[in-house]
Amino acid sequence: MEKINEKRISRRDLIINTGKIAATAAIVSAGIGSGIKTAEAYKYKAVYKYAKVDPKMVAKVTYENYFKRWCASSVIAGFVENLKKEVGGAWKDFPIDAYRWMHGGMAGWGALCGTMPGAGVIIGLVTDDTDIAEAMTNDLAFYYAYTELPSFVPEKPIKAKIRHKTIAGTPVCHISVGRWMRAEGVGFLTNERAERCARLAANIAMEAAIMLNDWVDGKYKPKHEPLFNVVANGITSQNNCRDCHGGFTPTPNETYPTLEK
Amino acid sequence: MEKINEKRISRRDLIINTGKIAATAAIVSAGIGSGIKTAEAYKYKAVYKYAKVDPKMVAKVTYENYFKRWCASSVIAGFVENLKKEVGGAWKDFPIDAYRWMHGGMAGWGALCGTMPGAGVIIGLVTDDTDIAEAMTNDLAFYYAYTELPSFVPEKPIKAKIRHKTIAGTPVCHISVGRWMRAEGVGFLTNERAERCARLAANIAMEAAIMLNDWVDGKYKPKHEPLFNVVANGITSQNNCRDCHGGFTPTPNETYPTLEK
Repeated sequence: MEKINEKRISRRDLIINTGKIAATAAIVSAGIGSGIKTAEAYKYKAVYKYAKVDPKMVAKVTYENYFKRWCASSVIAGFVENLKKEVGGAWKDFPIDAYRWMHGGMAGWGALCGTMPGAGVIIGLVTDDTDIAEAMTNDLAFYYAYTELPSFVPEKPIKAKIRHKTIAGTPVCHISVGRWMRAEGVGFLTNERAERCARLAANIAMEAAIMLNDWVDGKYKPKHEPLFNVVANGITSQNNCRDCHGGFTPTPNETYPTLEK
Repeated sequence: MEKINEKRISRRDLIINTGKIAATAAIVSAGIGSGIKTAEAYKYKAVYKYAKVDPKMVAKVTYENYFKRWCASSVIAGFVENLKKEVGGAWKDFPIDAYRWMHGGMAGWGALCGTMPGAGVIIGLVTDDTDIAEAMTNDLAFYYAYTELPSFVPEKPIKAKIRHKTIAGTPVCHISVGRWMRAEGVGFLTNERAERCARLAANIAMEAAIMLNDWVDGKYKPKHEPLFNVVANGITSQNNCRDCHGGFTPTPNETYPTLEK
């Protein structure tokens, strides 16, 4: 991590630049599997128009929708209900519920928390460059993993009063919700847990709205290095290796010398 | 698991039925957070028309697209390129690349393998009932986790010849690809690994196409219990607890008596 943070570089720079960061460029281009040209980020056609929305209103609608639509589709609803008013058009028929299966780490499998891919659907459809969507979803994962959440407090709690915020350390649903449950002292199948996930969804929707509002104003700058995890750990990953590996965390460089070879 | 498998029941049955499976019904309704009515599955408007496509052609196009578009968008491309021919209409302008950020467990974070949410995007947009998308994505996660993959073999390998198939035991990108890398003896940042992920994407696209073809013929039946993981483990989860927890796997019933309370 230290190495690539020495200089502020975009993933596109990583791929194109063949100078002093050649090793890193080789990682990214070979790594994601296809040589420099084909791994390069590219433009695509955005199909939905975005206009600035009030992040607090996006959060409010997300929170209220959670109890029917669950994590992913509630975030989508938070955006869509507000964009219907601000933009109209295609947003009026947006298939909010077509993404409900993303809940609970995909159909309850506990993998990727549905709040982020919910926001990612909106981000991907309104932006027009793979670099931007990559950077925003990466920033969103950092926010999710390393912020005390949920910090959103509704005017009137719908399901329960809750006491704790926790730092997930990961975008993984099972670990994130498990840590919060331990802090709060409640099980998954409780109103408290549902209340927590609803507020968390509101936080993620709000953060994504702030990023998209900046982007539409031409002010969005990535806060974190995209693909830091692949570069740092030599595999798609997080920085919580010991959560699962304990003291026996593999060192990719030692095992398979693919970095800087 | 044994308990709910005694009788073949749908998640909707679980929610509605308050008889002998009342405990389970309570889990699901309270569990996903919102009481019986609001947790119920519901219809929504499908926005894209589906027609049967040749699963082998879907796999082929997915494989070929991987090296530019990576896991999620390559699966989407596999469907879209074929549905353009079979259906046309809105498929001609489908934003294939709006979902590329899903790659590598979301922007490389190693959480949910992008092949499944890629397929899920198509599943969610063409079906019209949250129960169906839930069941199909759940079946797809089972297929991904418990099948020796990749079994797809291209006519001409684009990046490399590879030797191994592995059983992931999880839909999590990092664990899945890590297990395969260990078997093959290669690092992440190699042509072999890219070749593996391209073939795996082809397998997932093919399996999803088989399910959707059955569904459009009125023949699709879920192979596995949706939300089995929440019911069995009392939290969004997989059945690979010891992959991370080792011998200290928590027992939710003992810690927080939320099941059958």
